[in-house]
Amino acid sequence: MDYSKRIEKLQALLRRRKVDAILVTQPENRRYLSGYTGGDHGIGETSGVLVVPARGGLWLLTDFRYRLQAEQDVPWATVVLYPRGLLRLLPGLLADLGVRKLAFESHYTLHSTATMLAEGLAKVGIAITPLKGLVEAMRLIKDEEEIDCIRQSVKLNEQVFGEIFPTIQPGQTEFDIALAIETAMRRHGAEQPSFPSIVASADRSALPHAVPGPLPVESDRPLTIDMGLVLNGYCSDMTRTFVPGQADTRYLELHRLVRRAQLAGMEAIRAGVKASAVDRAARAIIAGAGYGDAFGHALGHGVGLAVHEDPRLSSLNHKRLRAGMVITVEPGIYLAGWGGIRLENMVVVREDGCENLNADTTWLDL
Amino acid sequence: MDYSKRIEKLQALLRRRKVDAILVTQPENRRYLSGYTGGDHGIGETSGVLVVPARGGLWLLTDFRYRLQAEQDVPWATVVLYPRGLLRLLPGLLADLGVRKLAFESHYTLHSTATMLAEGLAKVGIAITPLKGLVEAMRLIKDEEEIDCIRQSVKLNEQVFGEIFPTIQPGQTEFDIALAIETAMRRHGAEQPSFPSIVASADRSALPHAVPGPLPVESDRPLTIDMGLVLNGYCSDMTRTFVPGQADTRYLELHRLVRRAQLAGMEAIRAGVKASAVDRAARAIIAGAGYGDAFGHALGHGVGLAVHEDPRLSSLNHKRLRAGMVITVEPGIYLAGWGGIRLENMVVVREDGCENLNADTTWLDL
Repeated sequence: MDYSKRIEKLQALLRRRKVDAILVTQPENRRYLSGYTGGDHGIGETSGVLVVPARGGLWLLTDFRYRLQAEQDVPWATVVLYPRGLLRLLPGLLADLGVRKLAFESHYTLHSTATMLAEGLAKVGIAITPLKGLVEAMRLIKDEEEIDCIRQSVKLNEQVFGEIFPTIQPGQTEFDIALAIETAMRRHGAEQPSFPSIVASADRSALPHAVPGPLPVESDRPLTIDMGLVLNGYCSDMTRTFVPGQADTRYLELHRLVRRAQLAGMEAIRAGVKASAVDRAARAIIAGAGYGDAFGHALGHGVGLAVHEDPRLSSLNHKRLRAGMVITVEPGIYLAGWGGIRLENMVVVREDGCENLNADTTWLDL
Repeated sequence: MDYSKRIEKLQALLRRRKVDAILVTQPENRRYLSGYTGGDHGIGETSGVLVVPARGGLWLLTDFRYRLQAEQDVPWATVVLYPRGLLRLLPGLLADLGVRKLAFESHYTLHSTATMLAEGLAKVGIAITPLKGLVEAMRLIKDEEEIDCIRQSVKLNEQVFGEIFPTIQPGQTEFDIALAIETAMRRHGAEQPSFPSIVASADRSALPHAVPGPLPVESDRPLTIDMGLVLNGYCSDMTRTFVPGQADTRYLELHRLVRRAQLAGMEAIRAGVKASAVDRAARAIIAGAGYGDAFGHALGHGVGLAVHEDPRLSSLNHKRLRAGMVITVEPGIYLAGWGGIRLENMVVVREDGCENLNADTTWLDL
């Protein structure tokens, strides 16, 4: 990845906004700009932050636990440790850099931290200003190197599914299947699952975000598996629904309906089309069959370094898709007491259509 | 757990602070007050928030994905969905409840969210005020029911370690051992690891937060395993260091030194003693042997619903320990190029001493 090009692009944006530097706290933004792989334990325990001045240089601030990793991952950055916390290091460091106005990522900074930061920096004559989504906007469009990383992530995810699928048997618990999936992911070299795997049988498949339980998978009921992994920092996300035993007519009918909606969504995708129009194209198929109320979520979302990122493929997002965006297409039908069916692929938006990153095996079409 | 008692205690605190309600966004606080087990995907994707009015009632606000789980976990709460986001639901709901002044958890609310919340609520005449650590202060002291949950979590964690320990062989990778540990945790019914397991061999054991790599464990060098799990919401956290093959004299000497420091720390613990005095008691042993600079972190931290919570057992925390606190005691020595040794137990602070939750097997004493 060409990190220096990304830093230069960000610096140009900072100069245009007349700020002297930005404090990058959002973990995926940090990785996007520097390649630093340090992992945070939630927003309260960061493995480091970047200071990107509007002109020249890159600073990676962390604590002694991550020093070696920081120096190995980002040899071109100046790594500085904060033994007594970031808030005690920043005033001196920023003053030395001649910063008078510091932007911070208001969408990934706690209110209490921002308050302390503002107070601490005011004492040395530095003002802070909230900035939201500047680096995220850079991350919206993936270059071919990133798309290739995502392709590899999707491929490995499908490989894991392909390995586990034939082993699934009625009576196994949701939990056992989820564990088998995540173990296989890690054995095959994934950094981690990109989200906790969903394995939901029967009634529970009607919950789009069901937590796998110690409950046996039922033979003749829908089984939804929603899984993804992180490989070289990039995420995959895929959902498959099927019936382990014998599917009945109603299942087949609804499965085909969801699949038709997915295909309609994919067919609507190309650069220049509004995200809401793609959502509408898929939703119209499901609503037309009388199941509009049973499809209660958006059609899809962006995927990259984060498993959920912009653009949202929803009825409320009227922005136009652009070439190089990577998005999921995942219509679903959820019926309380019966179950649910969701089918999810990942695609790249291209000038003249979309590139399906999933192998999209025909069994999806039943 | 007696959730209604906790809610009543919080309500009394709210009335004393003259606020009409609090918005609880911090996930462990949410679980502590209501038993809701919904899991968040980071601070940006919450599975719900609580509204606790100063008088009467409990509201759990979530989106449709978590509806069933919310209703199952917290039948005594009013579950309200926010199909268009929390910020669109709150003004109407709070106005209906007669709220004029709303507290929010500034230590777990994003700056951008707080800004939008303030603007949205101002339009209906509601002011917001930051509150930090109110519920965390309630969580500091564990009752016996909680301590029993923690005891079970520690016990299961030791069981997993006991299962994996005899299988560890030189040549296995750190990564394989970490995977075996986390797989065993889940097989035995843990909800999840309480943090990514640390398995660090040789030089890498000198990094307190090493990420397990594809590198073989070395026979005659220190191997540090730091692991914990979540059971019924409560965390465990334990570190063991040993040499898979033959330990040399230097290792044995340093291991015994760390162990003596740990015992000194544990002996110093009882209700009424300053946290800093406990840190000092353990640190004095290591410093007295000339390794003061090699022990670069605090002696311990609280554990409960979160794996890292207050109180911090550090030289900077002069607050007094209280009976019912649960803390780790984890001195370490880290020598670049050689490796590190850390030993970590969990204890309950009692009036007259401490209760060691770990079985504390004698091999620790070598």
